Amino acid sequence: MNAPTGRLDSQLTLPQPYLLFLGDTTEAGYAKTAFGLADWAADRCVGEWAIGGCTVTTGLSRLSPAEARAAGARSLVIGVANQGGIIGDSWVAVLVEAMEAGLDIVSGLHVRLTSIPALADAARRTGQRLIDVRTPPPSIPIGNGRKRSGKRLLTVGTDCALGKKYTALALHRAFAERGIDADFRATGQTGIMIAGGGMPMDAVVSDFEAGAAEMLSPDAPADHWDLIEGQGSIFNPAYAAVSLGLLHGSQPDVFVVCHDPTRTVILGMESFALPSIEEVIDLTIRLGSRTNPAIRCGGVSLNTSSYDADAAAALMAAEAARLGLPVADPIRGGAAFAALVENCLA
Amino acid sequence: MNAPTGRLDSQLTLPQPYLLFLGDTTEAGYAKTAFGLADWAADRCVGEWAIGGCTVTTGLSRLSPAEARAAGARSLVIGVANQGGIIGDSWVAVLVEAMEAGLDIVSGLHVRLTSIPALADAARRTGQRLIDVRTPPPSIPIGNGRKRSGKRLLTVGTDCALGKKYTALALHRAFAERGIDADFRATGQTGIMIAGGGMPMDAVVSDFEAGAAEMLSPDAPADHWDLIEGQGSIFNPAYAAVSLGLLHGSQPDVFVVCHDPTRTVILGMESFALPSIEEVIDLTIRLGSRTNPAIRCGGVSLNTSSYDADAAAALMAAEAARLGLPVADPIRGGAAFAALVENCLA
Repeated sequence: MNAPTGRLDSQLTLPQPYLLFLGDTTEAGYAKTAFGLADWAADRCVGEWAIGGCTVTTGLSRLSPAEARAAGARSLVIGVANQGGIIGDSWVAVLVEAMEAGLDIVSGLHVRLTSIPALADAARRTGQRLIDVRTPPPSIPIGNGRKRSGKRLLTVGTDCALGKKYTALALHRAFAERGIDADFRATGQTGIMIAGGGMPMDAVVSDFEAGAAEMLSPDAPADHWDLIEGQGSIFNPAYAAVSLGLLHGSQPDVFVVCHDPTRTVILGMESFALPSIEEVIDLTIRLGSRTNPAIRCGGVSLNTSSYDADAAAALMAAEAARLGLPVADPIRGGAAFAALVENCLA
Repeated sequence: MNAPTGRLDSQLTLPQPYLLFLGDTTEAGYAKTAFGLADWAADRCVGEWAIGGCTVTTGLSRLSPAEARAAGARSLVIGVANQGGIIGDSWVAVLVEAMEAGLDIVSGLHVRLTSIPALADAARRTGQRLIDVRTPPPSIPIGNGRKRSGKRLLTVGTDCALGKKYTALALHRAFAERGIDADFRATGQTGIMIAGGGMPMDAVVSDFEAGAAEMLSPDAPADHWDLIEGQGSIFNPAYAAVSLGLLHGSQPDVFVVCHDPTRTVILGMESFALPSIEEVIDLTIRLGSRTNPAIRCGGVSLNTSSYDADAAAALMAAEAARLGLPVADPIRGGAAFAALVENCLA
């Protein structure tokens, strides 16, 4: 991943490389952040660490905080969540030890690190930082709508939690493999940890939402691409404000619609039908053209994890024929994904 | 104005009646908040107060903080803004005196009252409150999209600052005159001071924007109306996130489009054309139908302050014929405004 271009001082930036902390986790499902980092930022993770009882591993070397620091680590990332998003007493001792070894602490949990007295004390004593990736940077400007140089792609969706981050990361990797100058622009906590920076769009005060998105993808060379992680959905009755501010401020040239074909209603809101892919394309163009009249749909990213290979291929082919657009599952890759990448770049 | 119905504890609520503070203002334009309160909440203002050099008056009696307290006042409202939105040293002494007399202090300025040490000290000493109406209440929930009982009207606009608050207030007054059970629901600082409570929508974290709007207009009797003050515009590249969260969370049955016929571009963004009234109607219905499929346009509120009476009447008649909807200027009132009110209630 390239270093972010410009206005870096105004964005969140995280000290890398990382030591991944797994706590005392026994369920892999609670370690999604650690697995995401091991998958997408392995070159910036020196190892993992845990405490007694942990049965989960990312496959990286086990290193104590001191060993990790000696290997170049600059921060310990809390790579697990537990129910309630809290930090147990048994974790606090490890986090203090990490600060004493010279590591900053990075967290995406709901609880603020600085609200835990033992951590705040240790930070003062050691001079290490406590970084909550849910906290937006100060001094976000009001949006101005000015057209910026360079090219931008935004992942959007028929709903939340169906592959917008993964799709943006996969497209970034594919662009880079083709030798294209590109940045992944993160808008959520896990994405920010992977990228080493970004903007927690859902935590920004609404008056500044579009301005925060403008700040996230600054002016760039004409052939540079920002691959921007989408959030929520313009059809989601709870989160559409986040999605529209991000769409306006990102002023994307291209968007990719992410969809889970097994989902029929909005997650957690059974009385709201999922919009169709066509509805998302149509409304995204209508709203997005306000800040970029040239906006177009590059294709569809389908989450086919509950289909076997043949059924997935048949579904993607049928959807591509129906929509007249490339349809691919980035996890499956292959010719379909290559076609999606090419159409985004066309 | 009726007391807000339900969930009151979760909204901002201001101690009334007020003493209006004019500072040392010499320009009426800086006293817009005081004039708004004198116009729309005169029955809840016991008087005004100023310091040496002030040449502006709302026409209310001059009362010292102690006299105002004796007359029933519960808070002093800073009714003026100066350039930069700061609080000068000469004001601080008056605000401390007001707290010593038993008044809370209410401010809509950008500077936080608690950030001024002399005020924070006086608040601790006297037990009076420092209330910033730009600060949202804690514990705003995520939106849930659930259909609420009662009826709702939202004012929307082709842009910012063209009469959405005034229109909602005028409609509230007209509804009340017809004996209809109705509340004005404020979403901006001046509106909140007038109503004595509300939700500063532009200061809410974007993830909670729709939830904040849901909280603002809770379940109500079937024939009760909430008249909700709009914010921004879904076409404004800076503020559309605020407007869409408010639209989704308000789930309005009826909306009224506010427009200034002399404006051709977005305020402060000369490269963005103002949308037409028809475009605003069409997109508001499309987006608003997500949470209220029965949404409809009740008519248009035209700011005709730069026209003479004949030209204004001709313009409103022509627009009404063109759009097939009632078009009125609430400040001029008359038959056109009565027709707008009737169509909203139809």
